[in-house]
Amino acid sequence: MEKLTHFNEEGRAQMVDVSGKPETVRTAIAQSSIEVNNTIYEHISQNKVKKGDVLAVAQVAGIMAAKKTWDIIPMCHPIPLKGINFSFEWQDGKADHKQLIISASVKTVGNTGVEMEALTAVSAAALTVYDMCKAIDKGMVIGPTFLIEKTGGVSSKDYRR
Amino acid sequence: MEKLTHFNEEGRAQMVDVSGKPETVRTAIAQSSIEVNNTIYEHISQNKVKKGDVLAVAQVAGIMAAKKTWDIIPMCHPIPLKGINFSFEWQDGKADHKQLIISASVKTVGNTGVEMEALTAVSAAALTVYDMCKAIDKGMVIGPTFLIEKTGGVSSKDYRR
Amino acid sequence: MEKLTHFNEEGRAQMVDVSGKPETVRTAIAQSSIEVNNTIYEHISQNKVKKGDVLAVAQVAGIMAAKKTWDIIPMCHPIPLKGINFSFEWQDGKADHKQLIISASVKTVGNTGVEMEALTAVSAAALTVYDMCKAIDKGMVIGPTFLIEKTGGVSSKDYRR
Amino acid sequence: MEKLTHFNEEGRAQMVDVSGKPETVRTAIAQSSIEVNNTIYEHISQNKVKKGDVLAVAQVAGIMAAKKTWDIIPMCHPIPLKGINFSFEWQDGKADHKQLIISASVKTVGNTGVEMEALTAVSAAALTVYDMCKAIDKGMVIGPTFLIEKTGGVSSKDYRR
Amino acid sequence: MEKLTHFNEEGRAQMVDVSGKPETVRTAIAQSSIEVNNTIYEHISQNKVKKGDVLAVAQVAGIMAAKKTWDIIPMCHPIPLKGINFSFEWQDGKADHKQLIISASVKTVGNTGVEMEALTAVSAAALTVYDMCKAIDKGMVIGPTFLIEKTGGVSSKDYRR
Amino acid sequence: MEKLTHFNEEGRAQMVDVSGKPETVRTAIAQSSIEVNNTIYEHISQNKVKKGDVLAVAQVAGIMAAKKTWDIIPMCHPIPLKGINFSFEWQDGKADHKQLIISASVKTVGNTGVEMEALTAVSAAALTVYDMCKAIDKGMVIGPTFLIEKTGGVSSKDYRR
Repeated sequence: MEKLTHFNEEGRAQMVDVSGKPETVRTAIAQSSIEVNNTIYEHISQNKVKKGDVLAVAQVAGIMAAKKTWDIIPMCHPIPLKGINFSFEWQDGKADHKQLIISASVKTVGNTGVEMEALTAVSAAALTVYDMCKAIDKGMVIGPTFLIEKTGGVSSKDYRR
Repeated sequence: MEKLTHFNEEGRAQMVDVSGKPETVRTAIAQSSIEVNNTIYEHISQNKVKKGDVLAVAQVAGIMAAKKTWDIIPMCHPIPLKGINFSFEWQDGKADHKQLIISASVKTVGNTGVEMEALTAVSAAALTVYDMCKAIDKGMVIGPTFLIEKTGGVSSKDYRR
Repeated sequence: MEKLTHFNEEGRAQMVDVSGKPETVRTAIAQSSIEVNNTIYEHISQNKVKKGDVLAVAQVAGIMAAKKTWDIIPMCHPIPLKGINFSFEWQDGKADHKQLIISASVKTVGNTGVEMEALTAVSAAALTVYDMCKAIDKGMVIGPTFLIEKTGGVSSKDYRR
Repeated sequence: MEKLTHFNEEGRAQMVDVSGKPETVRTAIAQSSIEVNNTIYEHISQNKVKKGDVLAVAQVAGIMAAKKTWDIIPMCHPIPLKGINFSFEWQDGKADHKQLIISASVKTVGNTGVEMEALTAVSAAALTVYDMCKAIDKGMVIGPTFLIEKTGGVSSKDYRR
Repeated sequence: MEKLTHFNEEGRAQMVDVSGKPETVRTAIAQSSIEVNNTIYEHISQNKVKKGDVLAVAQVAGIMAAKKTWDIIPMCHPIPLKGINFSFEWQDGKADHKQLIISASVKTVGNTGVEMEALTAVSAAALTVYDMCKAIDKGMVIGPTFLIEKTGGVSSKDYRR
Repeated sequence: MEKLTHFNEEGRAQMVDVSGKPETVRTAIAQSSIEVNNTIYEHISQNKVKKGDVLAVAQVAGIMAAKKTWDIIPMCHPIPLKGINFSFEWQDGKADHKQLIISASVKTVGNTGVEMEALTAVSAAALTVYDMCKAIDKGMVIGPTFLIEKTGGVSSKDYRR
């Protein structure tokens, strides 16, 4: 059975040594979503708020959060991110609701992958949408949040959901 | 139709003025979850890793993230949190999987609510579980994440899902 | 002659004790600007970049920087900001250039003023405009940056430039 | 016409992918200034405050701010800075005023330049001088702030103002 | 036997609820020290480095660290600090060594004490002295570090070592 | 006599240029300790607090603090840490007291050493133990804190205490 690599011999958490892993280009794409009612959907998507753009703020939040993933997730390594990109898409949700699909792609050149950075990015973006719209309805639901794809690294085969 | 209060007259984002709202005790409870396969479940729940405790790390992560919600969510006010508490519970998931239910309760005395702090806390805790177990399986799914309950404040009636 | 209140008896820097000052509503408005050439002006102002909005990003940057003023300016007190608002205005600059006037208004209820928060907010917004447009021209000039107005507090009369 | 590289195909902000750019030594020098009245000038320059040193605090602030430029400017890449150095110089200003010229030089070995780090460093230093002297006079004016020189990188010729 | 208040009913860490404790003026004084050899002592104390001042940098570090104690110590509450002051004193150490005594006094008005802020302040200051002098000798020893005095709060009698 | 490399020609602090130093594997091990009374010792060591684990929280705190050493110690370079590991050991202290020995080992591949990261890690862990146990006794004493060993780098021979 595989080991949880985040624990040392005393069974306590550690930040695992990745210095022996090769520096390669590594990418990860993660997805989250938030289900909102139609009122919120119209506000956001039709840009009723003149020049205002909920998604623009959410995206900035996601990019900035990705950069501090190492400060939010205790055992994550600090990684010099080389690029982050977001995309948004609306889908139908349950009755009178829409689902905003949020995906982020993150790239680095380093010893360890950027799955956590991509997952943190979409989570922060979804939380920001919630924050900016909660005056209208607090019943929004975030997620599911998951990894879509990762590339790079030699010890693990590339992952694709 | 309600307004999105996060936008100013030019339609740009702002951090809304809450100085006129009363300072009251305010609480919020949020919930997230993460679905893991049975191998991961056994590692975490049976504490096979001697003294190690994935949930202990996740909880510290959640508490620390709650305190910096204002630095992650752009339009959130900095709020002096007075208390944060977590609880974890295992439920059956889909075939060969378990669902870890994560809930956090946050309290403040202030001009504005702590919904975002509670939602950020459970999100960070779930991401931390993902990070610590991803060497075993990257197919874990986080969420749904949502607000369970909020109390305090006068302009909005208390919310209970 | 007035004393520099930031130095203690040994002549070293300190964070001065403000616990004896009254908690009042305090506001500050600061202004900065950035001079850009016409190419950059057109990109930004005509929103040629579909849905993109340099000013939206600059504004988020300014609001987030205001919240961490205490972490950027060593002797600043941490202050629970209650509201932040931005406005932007274009003016003619020198030949073939435009001046983007950036102003931010910050509000708190506390023992000490928010001048530094307002000045930090506009500075970060101007730096962000520079960053997002520097691929076109690195000759942009930021400033002058100054305080326009402050209100609140009893020991100092209100300031208006 | 050049493109604003900070926007993706949907027209939203992104942190551009720099992983294909070469790792080279890169430097940048930026300048800011602050105009102060003679009273403030004397306090600072004559070190009347025994052992106290406004410029020492400003310099520490500038160095620390440079290191967190990526956390202040949303689309900036995190860059492992290799060295930062400051210098200060007094010049005559308008009647009864002096101009403190602040310049900072920043160096890295990386995929992208350090202009923003140098500009952020001098901005934070100028704001710190303002903060430490504002008890005497709030009429100080910061800037102009601009890039003096950058070296390194292949896609852009070296820049010198 | 007293309880460890930082653990909840499940035995996991929590940030304890202090909202029921009274808002009072609270102070704490902590002390640390660093033992350095005579070469380092002369460099620091005689200010051989023209205008340079190791203690000035250490003090800024200590003040800034005190403000982010809540971000360093997981279960600490964010507290709006009202004032921080440092003092330094040289004492004889073991043969050919001097002891730099570092003390910091911290003040707030709040629901909980500032012991951790004072202890963090002196620790960061001592670490900074180490960092700035380690090119000369890496054998410096930091500490002991302890609380000297605390005042304020009703549930615990004032503490004085 | 060796120079203090942290000061520039004007005698002010700088972050020294390390871009000419080779990128090598570098490690450092530091030690701190905290002396606690027997009541606290029993609470911590016998894990009376069901599932609770003071050392687990202290260790997470230490790892997270190591990652932000550059943000706590002003002249420290930001370094991409590759691994961090902790160990704890109890020793007899003075009458009715026990000494908790805390050591941390840190590894990077970079231009400069990780002594400060290791020293910061053990300091934060010791402060966290203090914080979590101070409700029982505020007389705990932290330290001595010192460097045990460093390896890597060519300009200085390896250090071993």
